[in-house]
Amino acid sequence: MIGVDFGTLSGRAVVVRVDDGAELGEAVHEYAHRVIEDTLPGGEVRLGPDWALQSPQDWRDVLRIAVPKALAVAGVPASQVIGIATDFTACTVLPATAEGTPLCELLPDRPHAWPKLWKHHAAQPQADRITALAAERREPWLPRYGGRISSEWQFAKGLQVLQEDPEVYGLAERWIEAADWIVWELTGVETRNVCTAGYKGIHQEDGYPSADFLTALDPGFAGFIDKLGQELSPLGGLAGRLTARAAEWTKLPEGIAVAVGNVDAHVTAAAADAVRPGQMVAIMGTSTCHVMPSDQLAEVPGMCGVVRDGIVPGLWGYEAGQSGVGDIFAWFAETSVPAAYTEKAAELGLNVHEYLTSLAAKQKVGAHGLVALDWHNGNRSVLVDHNLSGMIVGQTLATRPEDVYRALIEATAFGARVIVETFESSGVPVEEFVVAGGLLKNAFLMQVYADVLRRPLSVIGSDQGPALGSAIHAAVAAGAYDDITQAAAAMGKRSTAVYEPDSARADAYDRLYAEYRRLHDHFADGELLHRLRAIRNEAGA
Amino acid sequence: MIGVDFGTLSGRAVVVRVDDGAELGEAVHEYAHRVIEDTLPGGEVRLGPDWALQSPQDWRDVLRIAVPKALAVAGVPASQVIGIATDFTACTVLPATAEGTPLCELLPDRPHAWPKLWKHHAAQPQADRITALAAERREPWLPRYGGRISSEWQFAKGLQVLQEDPEVYGLAERWIEAADWIVWELTGVETRNVCTAGYKGIHQEDGYPSADFLTALDPGFAGFIDKLGQELSPLGGLAGRLTARAAEWTKLPEGIAVAVGNVDAHVTAAAADAVRPGQMVAIMGTSTCHVMPSDQLAEVPGMCGVVRDGIVPGLWGYEAGQSGVGDIFAWFAETSVPAAYTEKAAELGLNVHEYLTSLAAKQKVGAHGLVALDWHNGNRSVLVDHNLSGMIVGQTLATRPEDVYRALIEATAFGARVIVETFESSGVPVEEFVVAGGLLKNAFLMQVYADVLRRPLSVIGSDQGPALGSAIHAAVAAGAYDDITQAAAAMGKRSTAVYEPDSARADAYDRLYAEYRRLHDHFADGELLHRLRAIRNEAGA
Repeated sequence: MIGVDFGTLSGRAVVVRVDDGAELGEAVHEYAHRVIEDTLPGGEVRLGPDWALQSPQDWRDVLRIAVPKALAVAGVPASQVIGIATDFTACTVLPATAEGTPLCELLPDRPHAWPKLWKHHAAQPQADRITALAAERREPWLPRYGGRISSEWQFAKGLQVLQEDPEVYGLAERWIEAADWIVWELTGVETRNVCTAGYKGIHQEDGYPSADFLTALDPGFAGFIDKLGQELSPLGGLAGRLTARAAEWTKLPEGIAVAVGNVDAHVTAAAADAVRPGQMVAIMGTSTCHVMPSDQLAEVPGMCGVVRDGIVPGLWGYEAGQSGVGDIFAWFAETSVPAAYTEKAAELGLNVHEYLTSLAAKQKVGAHGLVALDWHNGNRSVLVDHNLSGMIVGQTLATRPEDVYRALIEATAFGARVIVETFESSGVPVEEFVVAGGLLKNAFLMQVYADVLRRPLSVIGSDQGPALGSAIHAAVAAGAYDDITQAAAAMGKRSTAVYEPDSARADAYDRLYAEYRRLHDHFADGELLHRLRAIRNEAGA
Repeated sequence: MIGVDFGTLSGRAVVVRVDDGAELGEAVHEYAHRVIEDTLPGGEVRLGPDWALQSPQDWRDVLRIAVPKALAVAGVPASQVIGIATDFTACTVLPATAEGTPLCELLPDRPHAWPKLWKHHAAQPQADRITALAAERREPWLPRYGGRISSEWQFAKGLQVLQEDPEVYGLAERWIEAADWIVWELTGVETRNVCTAGYKGIHQEDGYPSADFLTALDPGFAGFIDKLGQELSPLGGLAGRLTARAAEWTKLPEGIAVAVGNVDAHVTAAAADAVRPGQMVAIMGTSTCHVMPSDQLAEVPGMCGVVRDGIVPGLWGYEAGQSGVGDIFAWFAETSVPAAYTEKAAELGLNVHEYLTSLAAKQKVGAHGLVALDWHNGNRSVLVDHNLSGMIVGQTLATRPEDVYRALIEATAFGARVIVETFESSGVPVEEFVVAGGLLKNAFLMQVYADVLRRPLSVIGSDQGPALGSAIHAAVAAGAYDDITQAAAAMGKRSTAVYEPDSARADAYDRLYAEYRRLHDHFADGELLHRLRAIRNEAGA
């Protein structure tokens, strides 16, 4: 079974055994164009601020290079492979012809013809307009997205194309998630997965936003839905069969099962065997994405979205997020740690994070006298405000770098606790907290989360959560298992109670969390922080 | 004329011409024992936390070494010297016999026999008790000190001796400021200057706190006033004549005039020729001390003290302070600036402060999006709360070290503005803002202050403000001038309007100051910050 994870800078293929999920081999291919942010390939056409594009050819290259390489590494003959599945960053979305040809391959000099990567943030005015109009009209779908539509999503990005390059908009017969486009490339069949349609395409049980709403947004936008898929495909479903062309690329057998597309975060739930109600999977890296199936439908303040069948068929799928986690630690390590520390770390053979962690870990809870707000990159859940900013409170002339570092770690743990408490107080129980992602390597940080959350932490058993999750979906699509839950139980990997809360530390954190919560609630209205940002933006203009 | 400035780590002698204040030569002597913080000399007797002592012999050595050396450097024959004056850190205070022998020279193994340096902070419980009792009894002198008696002052330190070493307390026939003790050494005559008696000894027009109050504090403390001087000597007055012994030390003529003792900050007003009502002199270094004569008596919230004749005879002398200024910048430079910056600074031949300043100076007002509270070392004026702590608000992943550095500079300027506004709203006009001290060398910082205060800044014309001020006092004591005002006009040095506010920047700072003020007022009650500190202290215990 092959799982292919398309990330922000590279794509990774993993060969997985159907019986038990054993990862037999993997290979990574880095995108030649990485993220296109300044000029289009060729260097002639400049992009505006906050633009972020990608090249479809880079994605095809992952199929051509990483998939055969992973097979070779695994030493598995291609003939034994019975299925393939992919997951993608989202919302990464592109305009295409009715045949699936990316417009950028026809109009390479037109910025809006290129795929917009998830972190393309230039459609903020369009997002703001969508949110405001939906709120004004009390559109029933708005609360399903925590009350705010993101600039990252399909509608905001599509509206930007219409308003800034109507000709490209007109030529775009399809407006399709990369997650679905890559499946189209593999199968020759256009499908639309329920996950991206729900979380990124504002699709709820009763369909997309109405034509009436779209017309009110912009008369030219009325037919936007026609560019999207009308029929949605379930996760773990069979999208189609591998075409001869794709078989040639991947060196896999023609005709094997290709699963419906999926999103990297959501498919990780299967990899962690955490697809039952109340299993919240936190994928912790530069930011944290929380996904959780539930049998309860509720309007949870500040969630990114709730989508029927959005993680696993038959359940509500919730998504929430913390917009800055590892990014904050990286920012601190880069900008705020003096030479004496970096030199000492090098002497000890540690990186700066490891060294700061070793110092921070020696402290008792609260000994630094600090509390931080982890809003350096805004706050997604539960405040849904990208214009908030961070703060550190309680500094003295005795405050050391490891003190601030620890306070920042704790602040992200407090942020996670706010999310968990908000779900629970909204009537959506969180039964288990499961961690995946790169920050797992910091055991001290994990212990802080266990203590702050006052819960044992479960841990995914794979470094390649998304690719493993995709392989699980592929196994279902290929018919090796009845459904995702069954396949995840066999192939997914999760260790429970790897980190247990210490009650004395948890008590001490309760006091700090109370202070965090006071700061959180005091600054939540954004009054002061928005004014500071406005002053900043005016000064910069 | 000789002025001698006794600082925290060294003493400095300056030879000054009587006619015009020209500084003809100077010499510095570093104290052999510097600050005694861990063990008494000899290394046998350990001191507790927050202790800070000094050695009287170190002070005598300044007279013996620095004074003759300064004369030699100046190339002035000793016979031309007609007077000498000294200034000292305060409250630096010692127990002595009735003959002026420091008890530490009789009982060198008893910690409480040694002089307590101004920054000895181990008498906090005693200070708290004095403040609480005075508030309870509504003692009329309490508002004269901004409502709080400092642990640094004579009564708190004296009460600590009584309570922790009653035998030394009993043997201490005199409890005397180093400022007065050094004059005793020079003249053989005990005098008590009005300045330290007022600001550090709780002496107001109607004398010291009552015996009744002292008894209520501690029955054993009832006679404390007997250890202090009853008759006070005016600033610029003649304390006595140089004794044969002191003439031998200093190589100065026996019998020349010795002026009444004084405090380094207060005497700087004379050096800046800023002894008229409303001339606020800010001595800006690690912390900032503000001194200002006025013809108005008012209870200004959070001031350190108001004393009749306390800066210059005939006027009320006000003192206020910011407890962290240069210390905060030094803390930031030491703990929060990465190697890339320190290396670049070295490459450019700049120190870290100069490099950060050069980057910060390029920014437009508010472009960093930050506002800080400058409470890293607590807040003296106007909140009088050493248990506050600092904060930085508005950080993003784009925040750079120079942004925070600039925000910290601005925060101290905002802190100064709060003080100036508080004086004015209390009915004590501030007519001119005059800067002295080490931070003068940072022209960018000065411009920030001018813009934030919306006032031109005057600047002292000497790097040796206290020593020059002392020489001016010496000239008055020697009869060369009628009074300090006249002598300061002739010998003091001040340039007016060296930094002029820019109205566009001042308008921009008004908006940031409004945010500072909101944070200031929100956190002023100390609720959250005190809880954080309590958590810290419990964790450390």
